[in-house]
Amino acid sequence: MTVPASGRPAAAGGRPGRPRRSARTGRRAGDSGTRAAILASARAQFAAHGYNGATIRAIAAAAGVDPALVHHFYGTKERLFAAAMQLPFIPSEVITAALAEGARRPGESVGIHMVRSALALWESVELRSSFQGLLRSAVTSEQAATMLSEFVTQAILGPVSTVAAGRDPKETAFRTSLVGSQMLGLALTRYVLQLGPIAAASPEELAVAIGPTIDRYLTGDVGAG
Amino acid sequence: MTVPASGRPAAAGGRPGRPRRSARTGRRAGDSGTRAAILASARAQFAAHGYNGATIRAIAAAAGVDPALVHHFYGTKERLFAAAMQLPFIPSEVITAALAEGARRPGESVGIHMVRSALALWESVELRSSFQGLLRSAVTSEQAATMLSEFVTQAILGPVSTVAAGRDPKETAFRTSLVGSQMLGLALTRYVLQLGPIAAASPEELAVAIGPTIDRYLTGDVGAG
Repeated sequence: MTVPASGRPAAAGGRPGRPRRSARTGRRAGDSGTRAAILASARAQFAAHGYNGATIRAIAAAAGVDPALVHHFYGTKERLFAAAMQLPFIPSEVITAALAEGARRPGESVGIHMVRSALALWESVELRSSFQGLLRSAVTSEQAATMLSEFVTQAILGPVSTVAAGRDPKETAFRTSLVGSQMLGLALTRYVLQLGPIAAASPEELAVAIGPTIDRYLTGDVGAG
Repeated sequence: MTVPASGRPAAAGGRPGRPRRSARTGRRAGDSGTRAAILASARAQFAAHGYNGATIRAIAAAAGVDPALVHHFYGTKERLFAAAMQLPFIPSEVITAALAEGARRPGESVGIHMVRSALALWESVELRSSFQGLLRSAVTSEQAATMLSEFVTQAILGPVSTVAAGRDPKETAFRTSLVGSQMLGLALTRYVLQLGPIAAASPEELAVAIGPTIDRYLTGDVGAG
Protein backbone atom coordinates (compact mmCIF):
# COMPACT_ATOMS: atom_id res chain seq x y z
CA MET A 1 0.00 0.00 0.00
CA THR A 2 2.83 2.41 0.71
CA VAL A 3 5.10 1.69 -2.22
CA PRO A 4 5.88 4.99 -3.92
CA ALA A 5 5.38 5.01 -7.69
CA SER A 6 7.96 7.73 -8.12
CA GLY A 7 11.03 7.19 -10.23
CA ARG A 8 13.25 7.51 -7.21
CA PRO A 9 13.14 4.56 -4.83
CA ALA A 10 15.09 4.93 -1.63
CA ALA A 11 17.76 2.43 -2.71
CA ALA A 12 18.69 4.51 -5.72
CA GLY A 13 18.14 7.91 -4.04
CA GLY A 14 20.18 11.07 -4.16
CA ARG A 15 19.15 14.59 -4.94
CA PRO A 16 18.30 15.32 -8.58
CA GLY A 17 21.30 16.49 -10.55
CA ARG A 18 23.73 14.98 -8.02
CA PRO A 19 24.91 11.69 -9.56
CA ARG A 20 26.41 9.08 -7.28
CA ARG A 21 27.36 5.46 -7.62
CA SER A 22 24.85 2.88 -6.41
CA ALA A 23 26.32 0.48 -3.91
CA ARG A 24 24.30 -2.31 -5.48
CA THR A 25 25.12 -1.86 -9.17
CA GLY A 26 28.20 0.32 -9.28
CA ARG A 27 26.45 2.57 -11.80
CA ARG A 28 25.89 6.29 -11.64
CA ALA A 29 22.42 5.38 -10.52
CA GLY A 30 21.47 8.66 -8.88
CA ASP A 31 21.46 10.57 -12.14
CA SER A 32 17.98 12.02 -12.47
CA GLY A 33 18.67 12.56 -16.17
CA THR A 34 18.97 8.80 -16.60
CA ARG A 35 15.69 8.21 -14.83
CA ALA A 36 14.01 10.90 -16.89
CA ALA A 37 15.36 9.26 -20.06
CA ILE A 38 14.04 5.86 -18.96
CA LEU A 39 10.59 7.27 -18.18
CA ALA A 40 10.45 9.14 -21.48
CA SER A 41 11.50 6.00 -23.31
CA ALA A 42 8.90 4.00 -21.36
CA ARG A 43 6.11 6.40 -22.32
CA ALA A 44 7.13 6.20 -25.97
CA GLN A 45 7.40 2.40 -25.98
CA PHE A 46 4.12 1.88 -24.12
CA ALA A 47 2.38 4.26 -26.51
CA ALA A 48 3.86 2.59 -29.58
CA HIS A 49 3.60 -1.06 -28.58
CA GLY A 50 0.91 -1.15 -25.92
CA TYR A 51 1.31 -2.32 -22.36
CA ASN A 52 1.72 -5.95 -23.34
CA GLY A 53 4.04 -5.32 -26.30
CA ALA A 54 6.48 -2.97 -24.59
CA THR A 55 9.47 -4.69 -22.97
CA ILE A 56 11.92 -3.50 -20.37
CA ARG A 57 14.68 -4.56 -22.76
CA ALA A 58 13.40 -2.28 -25.55
CA ILE A 59 12.71 0.58 -23.15
CA ALA A 60 16.27 0.32 -21.83
CA ALA A 61 17.72 0.16 -25.35
CA ALA A 62 15.82 3.27 -26.45
CA ALA A 63 17.02 5.11 -23.34
CA GLY A 64 20.59 3.95 -23.94
CA VAL A 65 20.91 2.10 -20.63
CA ASP A 66 21.30 -1.48 -19.47
CA PRO A 67 18.02 -3.37 -18.81
CA ALA A 68 19.42 -4.28 -15.38
CA LEU A 69 19.38 -0.60 -14.47
CA VAL A 70 15.70 -0.31 -15.39
CA HIS A 71 14.96 -3.37 -13.25
CA HIS A 72 17.02 -1.91 -10.45
CA PHE A 73 15.12 1.38 -10.53
CA TYR A 74 11.62 0.12 -11.12
CA GLY A 75 11.47 -3.61 -10.46
CA THR A 76 8.54 -4.64 -12.63
CA LYS A 77 6.96 -3.43 -15.84
CA GLU A 78 3.86 -2.40 -13.91
CA ARG A 79 5.90 -0.24 -11.54
CA LEU A 80 7.73 1.32 -14.48
CA PHE A 81 4.35 2.05 -16.13
CA ALA A 82 3.03 3.54 -12.89
CA ALA A 83 6.09 5.80 -12.63
CA ALA A 84 5.93 6.80 -16.30
CA MET A 85 2.21 7.66 -16.02
CA GLN A 86 2.69 9.29 -12.59
CA LEU A 87 0.20 7.01 -10.89
CA PRO A 88 0.39 7.70 -7.16
CA PHE A 89 0.43 3.96 -6.31
CA ILE A 90 0.87 0.51 -7.83
CA PRO A 91 -2.63 -0.65 -8.84
CA SER A 92 -2.19 -4.41 -8.51
CA GLU A 93 -0.62 -4.09 -5.05
CA VAL A 94 -3.34 -1.80 -3.76
CA ILE A 95 -6.11 -3.95 -5.22
CA THR A 96 -4.63 -7.17 -3.93
CA ALA A 97 -4.38 -5.65 -0.46
CA ALA A 98 -7.95 -4.32 -0.64
CA LEU A 99 -9.27 -7.73 -1.67
CA ALA A 100 -7.45 -9.62 1.07
CA GLU A 101 -9.72 -11.50 3.50
CA GLY A 102 -8.79 -9.40 6.52
CA ALA A 103 -9.38 -6.08 4.77
CA ARG A 104 -13.17 -6.31 4.86
CA ARG A 105 -15.42 -5.20 7.70
CA PRO A 106 -17.43 -8.03 9.27
CA GLY A 107 -20.42 -8.81 7.07
CA GLU A 108 -19.30 -6.49 4.29
CA SER A 109 -19.59 -7.97 0.80
CA VAL A 110 -16.63 -8.01 -1.60
CA GLY A 111 -18.49 -5.67 -3.96
CA ILE A 112 -19.34 -3.07 -1.34
CA HIS A 113 -15.78 -3.22 -0.04
CA MET A 114 -14.39 -2.84 -3.56
CA VAL A 115 -16.45 0.28 -4.30
CA ARG A 116 -15.63 1.78 -0.91
CA SER A 117 -11.88 1.10 -1.31
CA ALA A 118 -11.82 2.41 -4.87
CA LEU A 119 -13.57 5.63 -3.90
CA ALA A 120 -11.18 6.14 -0.99
CA LEU A 121 -8.25 5.90 -3.42
CA TRP A 122 -9.86 7.97 -6.14
CA GLU A 123 -10.53 10.90 -3.87
CA SER A 124 -6.80 11.67 -4.11
CA VAL A 125 -6.28 14.53 -6.50
CA GLU A 126 -3.11 13.09 -8.08
CA LEU A 127 -4.87 9.90 -9.09
CA ARG A 128 -7.73 11.82 -10.58
CA SER A 129 -5.40 13.83 -12.76
CA SER A 130 -3.49 10.76 -13.95
CA PHE A 131 -6.79 8.96 -14.67
CA GLN A 132 -7.94 11.95 -16.67
CA GLY A 133 -4.62 12.05 -18.54
CA LEU A 134 -4.79 8.36 -19.40
CA LEU A 135 -8.42 8.66 -20.47
CA ARG A 136 -7.62 11.73 -22.56
CA SER A 137 -4.94 9.81 -24.47
CA ALA A 138 -7.26 6.82 -24.82
CA VAL A 139 -10.07 8.78 -26.46
CA THR A 140 -7.61 10.65 -28.66
CA SER A 141 -5.53 7.76 -29.95
CA GLU A 142 -6.40 4.16 -30.64
CA GLN A 143 -2.88 3.11 -29.64
CA ALA A 144 -3.27 4.78 -26.28
CA ALA A 145 -6.66 3.10 -25.86
CA THR A 146 -5.01 -0.27 -26.47
CA MET A 147 -2.28 0.53 -23.98
CA LEU A 148 -4.77 1.57 -21.30
CA SER A 149 -7.01 -1.39 -21.97
CA GLU A 150 -4.10 -3.83 -21.66
CA PHE A 151 -2.90 -2.16 -18.49
CA VAL A 152 -6.37 -2.20 -16.93
CA THR A 153 -6.71 -5.86 -17.86
CA GLN A 154 -3.34 -6.89 -16.42
CA ALA A 155 -2.84 -4.71 -13.40
CA ILE A 156 -6.39 -3.95 -12.30
CA LEU A 157 -8.66 -6.73 -13.56
CA GLY A 158 -5.99 -9.39 -12.99
CA PRO A 159 -6.21 -9.17 -9.19
CA VAL A 160 -10.00 -8.68 -9.36
CA SER A 161 -10.36 -11.89 -11.34
CA THR A 162 -9.00 -13.86 -8.37
CA VAL A 163 -12.28 -13.23 -6.54
CA ALA A 164 -14.55 -13.83 -9.57
CA ALA A 165 -16.37 -17.08 -10.10
CA GLY A 166 -16.19 -18.83 -13.45
CA ARG A 167 -16.25 -22.33 -14.78
CA ASP A 168 -13.57 -21.37 -17.26
CA PRO A 169 -11.10 -18.51 -17.79
CA LYS A 170 -13.38 -16.98 -20.43
CA GLU A 171 -16.30 -16.69 -18.04
CA THR A 172 -14.01 -15.32 -15.32
CA ALA A 173 -12.65 -12.71 -17.74
CA PHE A 174 -16.19 -11.71 -18.77
CA ARG A 175 -17.26 -11.30 -15.15
CA THR A 176 -14.15 -9.30 -14.35
CA SER A 177 -14.60 -6.97 -17.30
CA LEU A 178 -18.23 -6.36 -16.30
CA VAL A 179 -16.81 -5.13 -12.99
CA GLY A 180 -14.43 -2.93 -15.00
CA SER A 181 -17.31 -1.44 -17.00
CA GLN A 182 -19.16 -0.35 -13.85
CA MET A 183 -16.09 0.88 -11.98
CA LEU A 184 -14.79 2.88 -14.95
CA GLY A 185 -18.30 4.27 -15.52
CA LEU A 186 -18.38 5.35 -11.89
CA ALA A 187 -14.98 7.07 -12.18
CA LEU A 188 -16.02 8.74 -15.44
CA THR A 189 -19.34 10.07 -14.15
CA ARG A 190 -18.09 11.08 -10.69
CA TYR A 191 -14.75 12.67 -11.56
CA VAL A 192 -14.73 13.60 -15.24
CA LEU A 193 -18.33 14.42 -16.12
CA GLN A 194 -19.23 15.20 -12.50
CA LEU A 195 -22.77 14.07 -13.16
CA GLY A 196 -24.88 15.76 -10.45
CA PRO A 197 -26.19 13.02 -8.16
CA ILE A 198 -23.18 10.71 -8.67
CA ALA A 199 -20.75 13.53 -7.91
CA ALA A 200 -22.80 14.63 -4.90
CA ALA A 201 -23.27 11.18 -3.34
CA SER A 202 -21.12 10.08 -0.41
CA PRO A 203 -18.72 7.15 -0.90
CA GLU A 204 -20.94 5.18 1.48
CA GLU A 205 -24.11 5.79 -0.56
CA LEU A 206 -22.30 4.75 -3.73
CA ALA A 207 -20.84 1.63 -2.06
CA VAL A 208 -24.31 0.54 -0.91
CA ALA A 209 -25.90 1.26 -4.30
CA ILE A 210 -23.18 -0.12 -6.59
CA GLY A 211 -21.59 -2.81 -4.39
CA PRO A 212 -24.32 -5.41 -5.06
CA THR A 213 -23.79 -4.90 -8.81
CA ILE A 214 -20.13 -5.78 -8.37
CA ASP A 215 -21.06 -8.83 -6.26
CA ARG A 216 -23.44 -10.10 -8.95
CA TYR A 217 -20.86 -9.55 -11.70
CA LEU A 218 -18.25 -11.41 -9.64
CA THR A 219 -20.25 -14.39 -8.45
CA GLY A 220 -23.95 -14.07 -9.31
CA ASP A 221 -25.99 -15.02 -12.35
CA VAL A 222 -24.77 -13.09 -15.38
CA GLY A 223 -26.02 -15.56 -17.95
CA ALA A 224 -22.41 -16.49 -18.79
CA GLY A 225 -21.01 -19.86 -19.70
CA MET B 1 -36.87 7.49 -34.35
CA THR B 2 -36.35 8.67 -37.91
CA VAL B 3 -35.82 12.38 -37.29
CA PRO B 4 -32.55 13.37 -38.95
CA ALA B 5 -30.16 15.26 -36.75
CA SER B 6 -28.59 16.98 -39.73
CA GLY B 7 -28.64 20.71 -40.05
CA ARG B 8 -30.84 20.48 -43.10
CA PRO B 9 -34.46 19.44 -42.42
CA ALA B 10 -36.62 18.81 -45.47
CA ALA B 11 -38.69 21.95 -44.89
CA ALA B 12 -35.64 24.16 -45.19
CA GLY B 13 -33.86 22.05 -47.81
CA GLY B 14 -31.97 23.03 -50.91
CA ARG B 15 -28.54 22.12 -52.12
CA PRO B 16 -25.61 23.62 -50.22
CA GLY B 17 -24.51 26.92 -51.67
CA ARG B 18 -27.80 27.45 -53.48
CA PRO B 19 -29.81 29.92 -51.39
CA ARG B 20 -33.55 30.07 -51.87
CA ARG B 21 -36.42 31.64 -50.00
CA SER B 22 -38.33 29.45 -47.59
CA ALA B 23 -42.05 29.42 -48.26
CA ARG B 24 -42.65 29.42 -44.50
CA THR B 25 -40.46 32.27 -43.34
CA GLY B 26 -39.73 34.30 -46.45
CA ARG B 27 -36.02 34.20 -45.51
CA ARG B 28 -33.10 33.01 -47.58
CA ALA B 29 -33.38 29.88 -45.50
CA GLY B 30 -31.59 27.52 -47.86
CA ASP B 31 -28.25 29.25 -47.41
CA SER B 32 -25.91 26.56 -46.17
CA GLY B 33 -23.55 29.30 -45.01
CA THR B 34 -26.23 30.52 -42.60
CA ARG B 35 -26.73 27.03 -41.22
CA ALA B 36 -22.98 26.57 -40.86
CA ALA B 37 -22.78 29.89 -39.01
CA ILE B 38 -25.59 28.82 -36.66
CA LEU B 39 -23.94 25.48 -35.92
CA ALA B 40 -20.55 27.10 -35.33
CA SER B 41 -22.17 29.64 -33.03
CA ALA B 42 -24.04 26.83 -31.25
CA ARG B 43 -20.83 24.88 -30.65
CA ALA B 44 -19.13 28.00 -29.26
CA GLN B 45 -22.08 28.92 -27.02
CA PHE B 46 -22.57 25.37 -25.72
CA ALA B 47 -18.84 25.13 -24.99
CA ALA B 48 -18.75 28.50 -23.23
CA HIS B 49 -22.01 28.36 -21.28
CA GLY B 50 -22.85 24.65 -21.00
CA TYR B 51 -25.94 22.94 -22.33
CA ASN B 52 -28.22 24.56 -19.78
CA GLY B 53 -26.70 28.04 -20.02
CA ALA B 54 -26.65 28.37 -23.81
CA THR B 55 -29.80 29.93 -25.28
CA ILE B 56 -31.18 29.91 -28.80
CA ARG B 57 -31.39 33.70 -28.54
CA ALA B 58 -27.67 34.06 -27.79
CA ILE B 59 -26.72 31.48 -30.42
CA ALA B 60 -28.75 33.38 -33.02
CA ALA B 61 -27.24 36.72 -31.97
CA ALA B 62 -23.68 35.38 -32.25
CA ALA B 63 -24.49 33.97 -35.70
CA GLY B 64 -26.07 37.28 -36.75
CA VAL B 65 -29.51 35.78 -37.46
CA ASP B 66 -32.99 36.04 -36.01
CA PRO B 67 -33.83 33.49 -33.25
CA ALA B 68 -36.93 32.56 -35.23
CA LEU B 69 -34.68 31.26 -38.01
CA VAL B 70 -32.82 29.00 -35.57
CA HIS B 71 -36.15 27.68 -34.29
CA HIS B 72 -37.31 27.20 -37.87
CA PHE B 73 -34.22 25.18 -38.77
CA TYR B 74 -33.76 23.15 -35.61
CA GLY B 75 -36.92 23.34 -33.53
CA THR B 76 -35.54 22.70 -30.06
CA LYS B 77 -32.28 23.30 -28.26
CA GLU B 78 -31.71 19.55 -28.07
CA ARG B 79 -32.07 19.19 -31.83
CA LEU B 80 -29.71 22.11 -32.39
CA PHE B 81 -27.19 20.48 -30.04
CA ALA B 82 -27.56 17.15 -31.85
CA ALA B 83 -26.93 18.88 -35.20
CA ALA B 84 -23.97 20.87 -33.87
CA MET B 85 -22.39 17.72 -32.37
CA GLN B 86 -23.31 15.64 -35.42
CA LEU B 87 -25.27 13.11 -33.39
CA PRO B 88 -26.98 10.77 -35.84
CA PHE B 89 -30.31 10.98 -33.94
CA ILE B 90 -32.15 12.91 -31.25
CA PRO B 91 -31.39 11.14 -27.96
CA SER B 92 -34.56 11.97 -26.00
CA GLU B 93 -36.82 10.90 -28.89
CA VAL B 94 -35.01 7.61 -29.41
CA ILE B 95 -34.94 6.85 -25.68
CA THR B 96 -38.58 7.75 -25.16
CA ALA B 97 -39.54 5.46 -28.05
CA ALA B 98 -37.36 2.65 -26.71
CA LEU B 99 -38.91 2.94 -23.25
CA ALA B 100 -42.51 2.94 -24.52
CA GLU B 101 -44.63 0.05 -23.24
CA GLY B 102 -45.10 -1.56 -26.64
CA ALA B 103 -41.39 -1.51 -27.52
CA ARG B 104 -40.47 -4.36 -25.17
CA ARG B 105 -40.60 -8.05 -26.01
CA PRO B 106 -43.04 -10.03 -23.85
CA GLY B 107 -41.44 -10.75 -20.49
CA GLU B 108 -38.41 -8.59 -21.21
CA SER B 109 -37.40 -6.30 -18.32
CA VAL B 110 -36.93 -2.57 -18.81
CA GLY B 111 -33.22 -2.92 -18.00
CA ILE B 112 -32.55 -5.71 -20.49
CA HIS B 113 -34.50 -3.82 -23.13
CA MET B 114 -32.58 -0.63 -22.41
CA VAL B 115 -29.17 -2.30 -22.77
CA ARG B 116 -30.27 -4.10 -25.93
CA SER B 117 -31.67 -0.89 -27.50
CA ALA B 118 -28.63 1.15 -26.55
CA LEU B 119 -26.25 -1.39 -28.05
CA ALA B 120 -28.30 -1.53 -31.25
CA LEU B 121 -27.93 2.25 -31.58
CA TRP B 122 -24.29 2.37 -30.55
CA GLU B 123 -23.22 -0.13 -33.17
CA SER B 124 -23.63 2.70 -35.69
CA VAL B 125 -20.23 4.06 -36.61
CA GLU B 126 -21.34 7.72 -36.73
CA LEU B 127 -22.62 7.62 -33.19
CA ARG B 128 -19.45 6.04 -31.97
CA SER B 129 -17.35 8.80 -33.49
CA SER B 130 -19.54 11.55 -32.06
CA PHE B 131 -19.48 9.87 -28.63
CA GLN B 132 -15.71 9.71 -28.84
CA GLY B 133 -15.56 13.36 -29.88
CA LEU B 134 -17.77 14.48 -27.00
CA LEU B 135 -15.82 12.37 -24.53
CA ARG B 136 -12.53 13.72 -25.87
CA SER B 137 -13.68 17.30 -25.24
CA ALA B 138 -15.01 16.32 -21.82
CA VAL B 139 -11.73 14.87 -20.59
CA THR B 140 -9.78 17.78 -22.09
CA SER B 141 -11.83 20.68 -20.79
CA GLU B 142 -13.88 21.14 -17.67
CA GLN B 143 -16.29 23.37 -19.58
CA ALA B 144 -16.91 20.64 -22.13
CA ALA B 145 -17.39 18.14 -19.30
CA THR B 146 -20.07 20.39 -17.82
CA MET B 147 -21.74 20.73 -21.20
CA LEU B 148 -21.79 16.97 -21.76
CA SER B 149 -22.94 16.27 -18.23
CA GLU B 150 -25.83 18.72 -18.56
CA PHE B 151 -26.79 17.33 -21.94
CA VAL B 152 -26.70 13.74 -20.68
CA THR B 153 -28.80 14.76 -17.69
CA GLN B 154 -31.44 16.57 -19.74
CA ALA B 155 -31.72 14.62 -22.95
CA ILE B 156 -30.70 11.12 -21.91
CA LEU B 157 -31.37 10.73 -18.20
CA GLY B 158 -34.53 12.88 -18.38
CA PRO B 159 -36.51 10.26 -20.31
CA VAL B 160 -34.90 7.43 -18.32
CA SER B 161 -36.07 9.03 -15.08
CA THR B 162 -39.69 8.52 -16.15
CA VAL B 163 -39.29 4.79 -15.54
CA ALA B 164 -37.26 5.13 -12.31
CA ALA B 165 -38.85 4.70 -8.92
CA GLY B 166 -38.25 7.25 -6.21
CA ARG B 167 -40.10 8.72 -3.28
CA ASP B 168 -38.74 12.14 -4.19
CA PRO B 169 -37.02 13.80 -7.17
CA LYS B 170 -33.64 13.46 -5.47
CA GLU B 171 -33.94 9.67 -5.17
CA THR B 172 -35.18 9.43 -8.75
CA ALA B 173 -32.22 11.50 -9.96
CA PHE B 174 -29.79 9.29 -8.00
CA ARG B 175 -31.29 6.11 -9.49
CA THR B 176 -31.18 7.57 -12.98
CA SER B 177 -27.58 8.66 -12.68
CA LEU B 178 -26.59 5.18 -11.45
CA VAL B 179 -28.05 3.93 -14.73
CA GLY B 180 -25.94 6.57 -16.49
CA SER B 181 -22.77 5.39 -14.73
CA GLN B 182 -23.23 1.81 -15.93
CA MET B 183 -24.33 2.71 -19.46
CA LEU B 184 -21.47 5.19 -19.97
CA GLY B 185 -19.05 2.64 -18.51
CA LEU B 186 -20.34 0.08 -21.00
CA ALA B 187 -19.89 2.51 -23.91
CA LEU B 188 -16.41 3.46 -22.70
CA THR B 189 -15.16 -0.10 -22.26
CA ARG B 190 -16.81 -1.53 -25.39
CA TYR B 191 -16.10 1.21 -27.90
CA VAL B 192 -13.26 3.39 -26.64
CA LEU B 193 -11.04 1.07 -24.59
CA GLN B 194 -12.30 -2.03 -26.40
CA LEU B 195 -11.71 -4.07 -23.29
CA GLY B 196 -11.37 -7.69 -24.48
CA PRO B 197 -14.39 -9.60 -23.15
CA ILE B 198 -16.74 -6.57 -23.20
CA ALA B 199 -15.79 -5.76 -26.79
CA ALA B 200 -16.10 -9.42 -27.81
CA ALA B 201 -19.47 -10.11 -26.15
CA SER B 202 -22.66 -10.12 -28.21
CA PRO B 203 -25.30 -7.45 -27.51
CA GLU B 204 -27.50 -10.26 -26.21
CA GLU B 205 -24.89 -11.45 -23.69
CA LEU B 206 -24.37 -7.90 -22.47
CA ALA B 207 -28.13 -7.28 -22.21
CA VAL B 208 -28.57 -10.40 -20.08
CA ALA B 209 -25.57 -9.60 -17.87
CA ILE B 210 -26.08 -5.84 -17.43
CA GLY B 211 -29.89 -5.53 -17.78
CA PRO B 212 -30.63 -6.66 -14.20
CA THR B 213 -28.21 -4.00 -12.92
CA ILE B 214 -30.24 -1.35 -14.73
CA ASP B 215 -33.47 -2.80 -13.34
CA ARG B 216 -32.14 -2.67 -9.79
CA TYR B 217 -30.91 0.90 -10.22
CA LEU B 218 -34.30 1.92 -11.62
CA THR B 219 -36.64 0.22 -9.20
CA GLY B 220 -34.78 -2.08 -6.78
CA ASP B 221 -33.09 -1.51 -3.45
CA VAL B 222 -30.24 0.95 -3.84
CA GLY B 223 -30.25 2.10 -0.24
CA ALA B 224 -31.52 5.54 -1.33
CA GLY B 225 -33.95 7.83 0.42
